[in-house]
Amino acid sequence: MRVRNKPWADTLIADNEKAIVLEPAQYRGHWQDRFASQQPLHVEVGTGKGQFLIGMAKAHPELNFVGIELQKSVLAAALKTSLPEELTNLQWVLADGQGIENFFEPREVAKLYLNFSDPWPKTRHEKRRLTSKTFLASYSAVLGNGGNIQFKTDNRHLFEYSIMSMAAFGLDLRELSLDLHTDVAASEGQLENIETEYEQKFAAKGQPIYRLVARIPEK
Amino acid sequence: MRVRNKPWADTLIADNEKAIVLEPAQYRGHWQDRFASQQPLHVEVGTGKGQFLIGMAKAHPELNFVGIELQKSVLAAALKTSLPEELTNLQWVLADGQGIENFFEPREVAKLYLNFSDPWPKTRHEKRRLTSKTFLASYSAVLGNGGNIQFKTDNRHLFEYSIMSMAAFGLDLRELSLDLHTDVAASEGQLENIETEYEQKFAAKGQPIYRLVARIPEK
Repeated sequence: MRVRNKPWADTLIADNEKAIVLEPAQYRGHWQDRFASQQPLHVEVGTGKGQFLIGMAKAHPELNFVGIELQKSVLAAALKTSLPEELTNLQWVLADGQGIENFFEPREVAKLYLNFSDPWPKTRHEKRRLTSKTFLASYSAVLGNGGNIQFKTDNRHLFEYSIMSMAAFGLDLRELSLDLHTDVAASEGQLENIETEYEQKFAAKGQPIYRLVARIPEK
Repeated sequence: MRVRNKPWADTLIADNEKAIVLEPAQYRGHWQDRFASQQPLHVEVGTGKGQFLIGMAKAHPELNFVGIELQKSVLAAALKTSLPEELTNLQWVLADGQGIENFFEPREVAKLYLNFSDPWPKTRHEKRRLTSKTFLASYSAVLGNGGNIQFKTDNRHLFEYSIMSMAAFGLDLRELSLDLHTDVAASEGQLENIETEYEQKFAAKGQPIYRLVARIPEK
């Protein structure tokens, strides 16, 4: 998401250092210090305006959440929305997700979320896709064996690519849905799905939403 | 597909023993004897009325094809359609595909096709699905390393299950399409797709057709 820089973003970020981290490598191995309770840590890479992670943090007080986003004005919007909620289990990180191995120790993260990532459709941009081999290796490092990656997208080609990439990497594929919203509706409340901003927009057009959970296998 | 027994089927089969095999285990290791030319052998499990395999045999004279089907009247219909074509690279087998390891020697088959298999939606029937673990083990045995399984279906839940089952079995997933007909149309003749009877019916309703090729990895 490309947006114009907004001057209020800098002020908002500077004024709320308890909710947002600018140098995440400083907290490597110590993320639990940023939260009210020591509990499993879930991380969203490319958190956008934060609707998904704010929803998750409210629905799951038993978990801690970190949302990483590269675009300052976008993350500032997430921060702005989250502040009135006073969530003590949610932290924002202004950084490039590519550096995730520098931000977290091995096994420090229990679950990763990738939601509606940039599809980078051209073959020459394959390495930029958040489900390409290099990224999967970084995720594996911070998750450790048994950790999960949950991936949602409306982009058919990115989902096809991601299935093949994750299988080739040796991940266990689970909870794979080629029409998530139909499955959620049919589950009568059994299947949880916190929606992102994009997801609501695309699903409203009748496009299927794809989801899978990939697990780092126990060796 | 359940159909009423047709008396003409027995006569047609008895009269055409050059085109149809009733005891496939007899040809284990010697399938090339049934064909005009020695060339790679492709096998369809659950061949139905044969439209796909007849189309393939016509399009690929450089390959030999065997279609296996359990239902006598259904296979007789395939035989009836194929006879006027006088295809010397196509053989039918009246048998249960579950016995495939008894029909072919290891590495005797180069590629397997599963088209619009019965979805067996109930969890207790999982073992009957043609992409369940036991079947994949049999396919691996007759294919050998580097062999391919091509799977097409219109059934979303069967496809979701099959992706997870094949990945868990350690197969390489390739050529995965969640909307095959759109991809074929966009490929301008680059992507081959011979349609089955079911496929034409379902695609005409606008339902997506799913396809993947799974490869037995080189060890």
